[in-house]
Amino acid sequence: MKRSFLRSAVSLIALFCFAATARAQRPREPEVVYPPQLLSDLAALRDAALSSDYAYQQVAHLTENIGPRMGASPQAEHAVAYVADKLRKLGLEVHLEEVQLPRWVRGIETAELVQYLGQAPGTTQRIVVTTLSGSSATAGSGITAEVVVAGSFAELNALGREKVVGKIVLFNVPFDKKKAAAGYAGEAYGEAVAYRGAGAKAAAELGAVASLIRSVGGAEYRLPHTGYSVPAGIPAGAVTAEDADLIAHLASQGPVQLHLTLTPQTFPEIVSHNVVADLKGSEHPEQVVVVSGHLDSWDLGTGAIDDGAGVAVAMEAAHLIEELHLHPKRTIRVIAWMDEENGGRGHDAYAKQHAAEMPNHAAAIESDLGAGHPMGFVVKINPSAAPLLRPMLEVLRSTGCTALRQTDYSPGSDISPLVKAGVPGFAPMQDSRTYFNYHHTAADTLDKIVPRELQENAAATAVLAYTLANLPQTLPR
Amino acid sequence: MKRSFLRSAVSLIALFCFAATARAQRPREPEVVYPPQLLSDLAALRDAALSSDYAYQQVAHLTENIGPRMGASPQAEHAVAYVADKLRKLGLEVHLEEVQLPRWVRGIETAELVQYLGQAPGTTQRIVVTTLSGSSATAGSGITAEVVVAGSFAELNALGREKVVGKIVLFNVPFDKKKAAAGYAGEAYGEAVAYRGAGAKAAAELGAVASLIRSVGGAEYRLPHTGYSVPAGIPAGAVTAEDADLIAHLASQGPVQLHLTLTPQTFPEIVSHNVVADLKGSEHPEQVVVVSGHLDSWDLGTGAIDDGAGVAVAMEAAHLIEELHLHPKRTIRVIAWMDEENGGRGHDAYAKQHAAEMPNHAAAIESDLGAGHPMGFVVKINPSAAPLLRPMLEVLRSTGCTALRQTDYSPGSDISPLVKAGVPGFAPMQDSRTYFNYHHTAADTLDKIVPRELQENAAATAVLAYTLANLPQTLPR
Repeated sequence: MKRSFLRSAVSLIALFCFAATARAQRPREPEVVYPPQLLSDLAALRDAALSSDYAYQQVAHLTENIGPRMGASPQAEHAVAYVADKLRKLGLEVHLEEVQLPRWVRGIETAELVQYLGQAPGTTQRIVVTTLSGSSATAGSGITAEVVVAGSFAELNALGREKVVGKIVLFNVPFDKKKAAAGYAGEAYGEAVAYRGAGAKAAAELGAVASLIRSVGGAEYRLPHTGYSVPAGIPAGAVTAEDADLIAHLASQGPVQLHLTLTPQTFPEIVSHNVVADLKGSEHPEQVVVVSGHLDSWDLGTGAIDDGAGVAVAMEAAHLIEELHLHPKRTIRVIAWMDEENGGRGHDAYAKQHAAEMPNHAAAIESDLGAGHPMGFVVKINPSAAPLLRPMLEVLRSTGCTALRQTDYSPGSDISPLVKAGVPGFAPMQDSRTYFNYHHTAADTLDKIVPRELQENAAATAVLAYTLANLPQTLPR
Repeated sequence: MKRSFLRSAVSLIALFCFAATARAQRPREPEVVYPPQLLSDLAALRDAALSSDYAYQQVAHLTENIGPRMGASPQAEHAVAYVADKLRKLGLEVHLEEVQLPRWVRGIETAELVQYLGQAPGTTQRIVVTTLSGSSATAGSGITAEVVVAGSFAELNALGREKVVGKIVLFNVPFDKKKAAAGYAGEAYGEAVAYRGAGAKAAAELGAVASLIRSVGGAEYRLPHTGYSVPAGIPAGAVTAEDADLIAHLASQGPVQLHLTLTPQTFPEIVSHNVVADLKGSEHPEQVVVVSGHLDSWDLGTGAIDDGAGVAVAMEAAHLIEELHLHPKRTIRVIAWMDEENGGRGHDAYAKQHAAEMPNHAAAIESDLGAGHPMGFVVKINPSAAPLLRPMLEVLRSTGCTALRQTDYSPGSDISPLVKAGVPGFAPMQDSRTYFNYHHTAADTLDKIVPRELQENAAATAVLAYTLANLPQTLPR
């Protein structure tokens, strides 16, 4: 996941405050009682989720047997076919809905410091860099220019065109690791990711020949974080935190010349797909509860926490409902979105194709903040809907998933068009304190998923989805 | 640092046991009293170390301005000149002692899974690999073979020649991260590093065409750890923990074919140097206390914790003694060793050249386990010498450096020929719980050094060295 609504994502401290407030307010809420059969079904779903390894098997297959799933890549297409096949086997009605998107292919990405104070004669120093998706390509032989370091957009602007023109700008803006460790991971991300998105554009406007950012994330292992950036007509990359420090230190001592080679290519659009799979409702088949994650991933890692886990948990929700022979009254629609990472064409296509059906979308869930222990749900709902969810949270109490946190943004990137159209939006509120250590890096791999925590996520999502599909009325908007 | 004596390195639990034992035994030790002037000088050294940034400046220059310092590289030669110059400026008598060594240059190092179950048609998966120093080169176009996974030498031998011949062996032996985190980092390292050293040889003996190990270290960030391996006539590499898991999982499902390209080159020997710098003793100039670290580093990172820190701390000891106008009675000899990492030719050359002077080496200190908080000293000394060191430890008590831990091995790789000759051996006993996360990786960079902890190491080393140089008698052997 990538976008600025993450400013509002998981905050442990905010959560505790909210939970306390919620408790204080609860006496004033109307008492909601679920039908005994629903309560019993939800408890059965929870318990089945906590002892199932289906979700883990799915994310293992997506990440290890298929691997990285960059939109429009053969792996992404293979993943579409795999997920569709699996959901068909569960008995769902599966549609592959077309998404037009270009294929972006990372090329060479190398950098070396070629001149700086104290350098051993005849040597260069390797800089670890990765390409951002909006990057222009350098010549195959690269470019060489002096680096100018800015700690913020304000610092860049204070330097002005004269000091920036012809240079490579390095935005050396640290990801706030302490904030992330304290539970404000989304906020820390939001502060730093602004430079990934808009840094190149700001640098280009002042005549820079390339733009680099300090990687957005908490890794301390010389690991670059890739991601989306707004195309600005210049090469755009992310160096590791260590390399940003190195360049900044050397630049404080004297001129630093960097040789940079980034050769990404964008190929013509192909037709890819969202996987849209319906478990038809028994009473209101036209009313839809979306349960989703995104199937595409960045190419550096294998997309385990971002977001194989989200897709696997959505698949598990359908699997458990089928396995327990439960019958949702409304349609539960599993969606594996395409192209969340590099443009969002998947959710744009869905929003366009299903525009007329928005009133029939009863709710939308997306999980795209990893597979850490879920502490509750981030929601964008009419506050009057909260009491309707309390008995559901009681079912999940034993798993520790008890909080509702209202947010101003959509709780998920792909469901944002739905949320904008008024559909109640939900995301599991995972413990994401380490999420941004691995996010968009080569280290987003299967081992980062703790099987027990994935089961807890499956329990949370299955119980929430089945509740939303079976409440006597849809949530007020 | 690299070798098996690390089995005996820092253990917090063992330390606590030892400290308790030491306390219990202390009443039976003879009471040793230092001259008041010595005690006062040691306290002054400690306090000066704790407020000096000289050591940090040195390690910053070595790692950032000079960079990686692989033996026989231009950077290593530049570092020799830099350290010699700095020590001359402090007033030391500096000798560059010749060390013949070949230059080893990492070449291409790539790997891809080209066949495995569930693979998306037409795709491969990247495997992150690094070359070990004893590796033969593959053809430039690489080799392709099936991977056979072994969890131990015993498992490999149980497979036998028939199942190994023509294959690539992967030793999938995890580094015990929990053991390391609990304070037994050296032991965890010792268990796993056996496969780095001898794995290729064992694989070659059964007809394997290449050997891979799971990286020896605790990183969870797709980071390979390089290091020394015994040349076995076949390519030898280390994959990351994540890639070892991936290969092992896929191999458990069906045949896995790997394409591997490793093209290291070894160039003819050149003359490099140990930097040997004497701060002459005022009373017994012929008696020598060695204070040392190794100047060479692996090429992936910039050699901050392994072992720029060790060299910087040794330089700081001399710097502080000069700055405080102190006069050691014995000669304090700062040594920046060459080639600790890839053959130990530096200490071999020293041992040969100074063989006749071994009886005059009063003690030898080497710091090569990072720059974490020092909790005391690892020692290989005659146990009857311990009471002579107690007042010195009392001087360091306020810094938390209070333990003596006797070991069966040399406390440092480069001082091992001296220790073998009977010279009392010492190393600061650093908190090394995270040392092997970064050891021999691209992430061994300046930011891994905590300035305050480096100052504590400087205090420990300066106080120890000055004590050893100024005790009325040399330690019993």
